[in-house]
Amino acid sequence: MSHQKLKQDVLRANLAIVQAGLVKLTWGNASGADRAAGVMAIKPSGVPYEKLSPDDMVVLSLKDGQIVEGKARPSSDTPTHLHLYQNFESINGIVHTHSMYGTIFAQAMREIPCFGTTHADNFHGTIPCTRPLAAEEIQGEYELNTGKVVVETFRTKKIDPANVPGVVLASHAPFAWGSTIDKAVENAIVLEFAAEMALHSLALNPNLRAIPQVLLDKHFLRKHGPGAYYGQSK
Amino acid sequence: MSHQKLKQDVLRANLAIVQAGLVKLTWGNASGADRAAGVMAIKPSGVPYEKLSPDDMVVLSLKDGQIVEGKARPSSDTPTHLHLYQNFESINGIVHTHSMYGTIFAQAMREIPCFGTTHADNFHGTIPCTRPLAAEEIQGEYELNTGKVVVETFRTKKIDPANVPGVVLASHAPFAWGSTIDKAVENAIVLEFAAEMALHSLALNPNLRAIPQVLLDKHFLRKHGPGAYYGQSK
Amino acid sequence: MSHQKLKQDVLRANLAIVQAGLVKLTWGNASGADRAAGVMAIKPSGVPYEKLSPDDMVVLSLKDGQIVEGKARPSSDTPTHLHLYQNFESINGIVHTHSMYGTIFAQAMREIPCFGTTHADNFHGTIPCTRPLAAEEIQGEYELNTGKVVVETFRTKKIDPANVPGVVLASHAPFAWGSTIDKAVENAIVLEFAAEMALHSLALNPNLRAIPQVLLDKHFLRKHGPGAYYGQSK
Amino acid sequence: MSHQKLKQDVLRANLAIVQAGLVKLTWGNASGADRAAGVMAIKPSGVPYEKLSPDDMVVLSLKDGQIVEGKARPSSDTPTHLHLYQNFESINGIVHTHSMYGTIFAQAMREIPCFGTTHADNFHGTIPCTRPLAAEEIQGEYELNTGKVVVETFRTKKIDPANVPGVVLASHAPFAWGSTIDKAVENAIVLEFAAEMALHSLALNPNLRAIPQVLLDKHFLRKHGPGAYYGQSK
Repeated sequence: MSHQKLKQDVLRANLAIVQAGLVKLTWGNASGADRAAGVMAIKPSGVPYEKLSPDDMVVLSLKDGQIVEGKARPSSDTPTHLHLYQNFESINGIVHTHSMYGTIFAQAMREIPCFGTTHADNFHGTIPCTRPLAAEEIQGEYELNTGKVVVETFRTKKIDPANVPGVVLASHAPFAWGSTIDKAVENAIVLEFAAEMALHSLALNPNLRAIPQVLLDKHFLRKHGPGAYYGQSK
Repeated sequence: MSHQKLKQDVLRANLAIVQAGLVKLTWGNASGADRAAGVMAIKPSGVPYEKLSPDDMVVLSLKDGQIVEGKARPSSDTPTHLHLYQNFESINGIVHTHSMYGTIFAQAMREIPCFGTTHADNFHGTIPCTRPLAAEEIQGEYELNTGKVVVETFRTKKIDPANVPGVVLASHAPFAWGSTIDKAVENAIVLEFAAEMALHSLALNPNLRAIPQVLLDKHFLRKHGPGAYYGQSK
Repeated sequence: MSHQKLKQDVLRANLAIVQAGLVKLTWGNASGADRAAGVMAIKPSGVPYEKLSPDDMVVLSLKDGQIVEGKARPSSDTPTHLHLYQNFESINGIVHTHSMYGTIFAQAMREIPCFGTTHADNFHGTIPCTRPLAAEEIQGEYELNTGKVVVETFRTKKIDPANVPGVVLASHAPFAWGSTIDKAVENAIVLEFAAEMALHSLALNPNLRAIPQVLLDKHFLRKHGPGAYYGQSK
Repeated sequence: MSHQKLKQDVLRANLAIVQAGLVKLTWGNASGADRAAGVMAIKPSGVPYEKLSPDDMVVLSLKDGQIVEGKARPSSDTPTHLHLYQNFESINGIVHTHSMYGTIFAQAMREIPCFGTTHADNFHGTIPCTRPLAAEEIQGEYELNTGKVVVETFRTKKIDPANVPGVVLASHAPFAWGSTIDKAVENAIVLEFAAEMALHSLALNPNLRAIPQVLLDKHFLRKHGPGAYYGQSK
């Protein structure tokens, strides 16, 4: 049996997003990549969370998506995950859920502006919303095209996915990611919390603007990069 | 003792809707039909959930509503359930709750538009709202007339109840159903979740329109029908 | 030791409102009356719920409020409870909480209209909001005057407290009551649930009107009075 | 080992704010002061709550902030806490969280008006919102300047921090405090509850005004000061 650590990490992340209240029924999946081994692992499609064991995780080649290990059919969203790993080289974990408030922004087709330091601690600016997919993109390779529109969004808006580790997909739901799979889980939690607060902040102050760049920089950079001083020294 | 499996399934569904947070006090009931045996089973009226056992379920004839088995008085909503089984031949489970957000749409007398893929996965379009009952319908056979207005709504709007397995009753609350009783429970959960997200999506974007037909088809049909590819192959 | 059953019932009700999520910190109290014995019992003031035993309940004369049994100081809201028992002869249990949505209507100084059958099952019409107390009423016997403004509200609006077993106090919070202390707890739960749904129903449909009288009558009277047919026959 | 009681109290408060649902991830910290010993204790920075023991708490001099005891790096918000203890002499406990509704008012840059007696029981008037920090205040000693803007807010508005034991920091989140660390925790809970109710009260009644001074005085003073009559006599 190979890729044991990766499969355990991916299972733990799938259970963590349920535990964090981000998942209804089976709407959610987490994956992880092992760049050195050239593979990703993801949960199987439509299997109840309480029945999952590490060996149910499906391992695929990062290069071409061929299944390397695992008997089950992988999550139907696998082509989206694969495309993100192939195009966002700094990420090693991806979480997709239909968490309530992230999904509400997705349904309303609105980006999530940074209204406070909670958001700024994990996302260095606005969490973008993709454009809606065109009819032919939906009828064609839908899940692959979902990945493509995320990459397009970050390239068009010149956003580094390492600094803004998440997106909302128009009419669909959020994706979050991170340099590790645990960071991806954390970013999915923060995206949901920031979305819920943003919704109510806008209700309380409909003219609310994003926080100034200097405060955004301060909070993101006190946790990330060479000048970070939050937490215990490593 | 006959109909044991049906009674166990119905009890399990009644407990599942409580567990899912859809039920306040005793506002909720689930029933199941055994078409081959010509019967339905439903929980008794106004009995606390924690005291129910399978043999408390009341079994009635699908043809005429006569009690076949069981000593308790059936749920006061039984005539509604019976009428739905008699007119919607594809359904074998029905769930009625006063779940908060489904009930809010019912009270506001508004249908629940499909604003995203979460809704589209289980409901192939708008979840309709019935017209209000007339005074004589309320004063007459109220619960039967409740069933009749649901059937009328689906016939008038030309909606197939197999594709849109739920409704909100004006000034009252939601009903959901399914091809099995477990599917009915799942659809009741999705209706509530979709309703809560729709309310807030409208708050965030008051001009929001339903998703395009092509996306609706994609999500519903990847889970239902001959082209389905979600979940593990059977 | 006398009044044991009353004290046990009152303790159980005080714990039930905590269990139902209606109480923050120590904002909540339940009382019960024994009309034959001429007494009421209420929880002591400001004592944490987890430390209460039946003998901590304070028993007072319904006639003059003199303490009959108990060493602790009774709830500071005792004069309100006493005045309601003295003036609403059909009630034998009272629950006061700062439950979130009932309190929101109180703060907004708005009555809670009957927008659906959930409300109608327990409250036969609008749950009224009192007028604000005048400065001298606040500076004088505040808690007694709180009881007086409730009684005034029901007399002025010609509402029978047996049919509408609750009120919201302007700028304060709800009171609910019932023919038994368990009914009072149930009515406090329904008031809160109806208030939360009313708030969101109004957000979804700002022009929403109360349900028609015929539907209100149908739902209230199928649970109350000689024609009731909900639940098991007695 | 010294300061054991202080460290135990501070740990208990840090766990209590998690238990009360005020903390997401590691966004929250509680501290306590021992004025006689001239020290404060605070939790370490970025350590998961479930791993904390009393000896992880960091003890610092109230005079100059030098670490007196403890091996970990203290919370990055320590300079804010220290400045508040140095300037608000009546307080001996401070709680900072990103609790949802307090943070929403902070993000919307709005003060929390007193809309009812729940708020008035613990806060004798409006909970103020600070001005935004200037760019140089953010780029300079950010956490110290956060403390300074709180002190400035209370001095400019002539509010006694003993009577209004909390604040929301523009674009950031709430701080609450108290004469003891347990009171600080209680005030953090009340601030959050009052904020959630205020948001919805404003939605229900957009023209809502703060309660009159006489009602504010009545509720605050029946719990605080020489005329208090709430709770058991001491």
